[in-house]
Amino acid sequence: MRPKLTDVAEKAGCSPTTVSRVINNYGYISQKTRDRVYAAMRELNYQPNTLARSLQGKQTKMIGVIMPSITNPFFAELVAAIEDKLEADGYKMLLCDVGQDSNKERRYLRMLEANQVDGIIAGSHNLGIEEYQRHGLPIVSFDRDLSDQVPIVTSDNYQGGCLATQALVDAGCGHVYFVGNLVKTGNPTSRRFDGYADTVAAAGLTVHTARSAFYESPAAKARELRELLTSGRKIDGVFCSDDLTAILLLKEARKLGIRVPEDLKIVGFDGTQLVQNYVPELATVVQPVPDLAGTLVKLLYERIADPEKKLAQNSYLLPVKLLRNQTV
Amino acid sequence: MRPKLTDVAEKAGCSPTTVSRVINNYGYISQKTRDRVYAAMRELNYQPNTLARSLQGKQTKMIGVIMPSITNPFFAELVAAIEDKLEADGYKMLLCDVGQDSNKERRYLRMLEANQVDGIIAGSHNLGIEEYQRHGLPIVSFDRDLSDQVPIVTSDNYQGGCLATQALVDAGCGHVYFVGNLVKTGNPTSRRFDGYADTVAAAGLTVHTARSAFYESPAAKARELRELLTSGRKIDGVFCSDDLTAILLLKEARKLGIRVPEDLKIVGFDGTQLVQNYVPELATVVQPVPDLAGTLVKLLYERIADPEKKLAQNSYLLPVKLLRNQTV
Repeated sequence: MRPKLTDVAEKAGCSPTTVSRVINNYGYISQKTRDRVYAAMRELNYQPNTLARSLQGKQTKMIGVIMPSITNPFFAELVAAIEDKLEADGYKMLLCDVGQDSNKERRYLRMLEANQVDGIIAGSHNLGIEEYQRHGLPIVSFDRDLSDQVPIVTSDNYQGGCLATQALVDAGCGHVYFVGNLVKTGNPTSRRFDGYADTVAAAGLTVHTARSAFYESPAAKARELRELLTSGRKIDGVFCSDDLTAILLLKEARKLGIRVPEDLKIVGFDGTQLVQNYVPELATVVQPVPDLAGTLVKLLYERIADPEKKLAQNSYLLPVKLLRNQTV
Repeated sequence: MRPKLTDVAEKAGCSPTTVSRVINNYGYISQKTRDRVYAAMRELNYQPNTLARSLQGKQTKMIGVIMPSITNPFFAELVAAIEDKLEADGYKMLLCDVGQDSNKERRYLRMLEANQVDGIIAGSHNLGIEEYQRHGLPIVSFDRDLSDQVPIVTSDNYQGGCLATQALVDAGCGHVYFVGNLVKTGNPTSRRFDGYADTVAAAGLTVHTARSAFYESPAAKARELRELLTSGRKIDGVFCSDDLTAILLLKEARKLGIRVPEDLKIVGFDGTQLVQNYVPELATVVQPVPDLAGTLVKLLYERIADPEKKLAQNSYLLPVKLLRNQTV
């Protein structure tokens, strides 16, 4: 049975009014009482009924957006697009930029709960689904499988991997490398590698990989890419699973006197406006940022309107497109 | 005399409790009543007493951050640094990405008031100070003079203009152009031009300018830069008032076969981590993003703790540094 507000009050040894005030952050409550109420809520796994609150006009019109980091242009453009849509609908965005810091993400989840946001858009990858579910808020996930009851929105990463690799094969490459994250996380972004692997196999070529982790420093990545290019291995095409890594590869190749695209062809992934504007020579797979933002926001509104509603569809895969520029 | 909450209630024809509920966004209030209370607040220029609220434990621990756009890497890195500091102190950030849209900025100010954020960090340039003051929230400004009672934090733009221009003069340039915003807005960023102008004058050179507006599209900017480079005018050095424009200039020069730095030397401004990492050849003036964020946040806390306190100092000018890279 679902715990009630009165159960929390009993457990915390205070009145239901006090619990309600803690939840709605109204009136003076001592930190000690506040802590006791939160502890009781956690212990009972109490989930404030969002639908009921919204019917009582208690919506806060605030959405928590949890993302890796807006210092990455892709996430900056995605967050800006989400913010713009939310604002147009009268919502405000609490931005939670959590990087790789799972403690920060945990603190944010507790704060979002305390401030009673109406829902969460979750795009970071540090915490497990249990920690998200404990807070009982409507959630939509970007680029990550959380659970059957959390809708996930993502680009068609597999299609993107295929398009990028096929462009390299079509341009005559016989030794095509994949450079990106090789750890099998089960996240949808791993599908970029799958698309690459299936495409080289279909072309009768061999899979070659070089690791480049998302959170490594650009200097460390550049060093690894230089090592790859000077290793003596035959490489005439590279699919980088993100544009920033592709830019580093392009720079290292130029420094080594390797001509792009004559000697080496490169295709990246993400296709932000920033990269399209300032590195227009880079061929890349463009993620549909406005559609991703629009879908995330629309699905979240549906979850807020009816958090218990069975999902017709759990996963939303949006099409990507290839930009054929000079590097291929 | 300062209007009181009871004055607002009388004007709006409702009880003080209702006014308090509207201000604190608590309980069910009809939209009609809400509108009437806001109208009365505006008419009386009523400013909720933040100090009193905070003594009553009514802090919301939310800060509104109003900025042009996080799709610009400089603002993305500044906002990320502000968010990180706020979170460490138990505050949450409502991000208001307003671009050039003064209506959006106005809507946000009203929403921030209704949600009773504890304070605002304002870095956008669309609205006048009256509109900000009307809302009576503690404010700290980035890069913009709002009023004597609003602390302003900015990089030492004049020093930056001098450093960049002197580097070009020292490298032997005799025809040094300034490319950037030429509209005299009275904003601190105009000081970049002043530093440029004084430095070329001191070197016995002539002031040359070419306009490049912040909000122009990169394609339009690139076209103007190409026109400048092919105009037949003598140009051997350019100080661009932002790095993104400098990157476009570098690209256009390369396309035209103009060698950088042999034939043309370029210095930019901003020096984000992104540009340092991915365009490491660009000489630039680095704004101290972590210090800017830390100073903005610290000053805002002081305003929140005592909104009426006379400021010892209105303007905070933080030092910049020159990165001498290959383009100079």
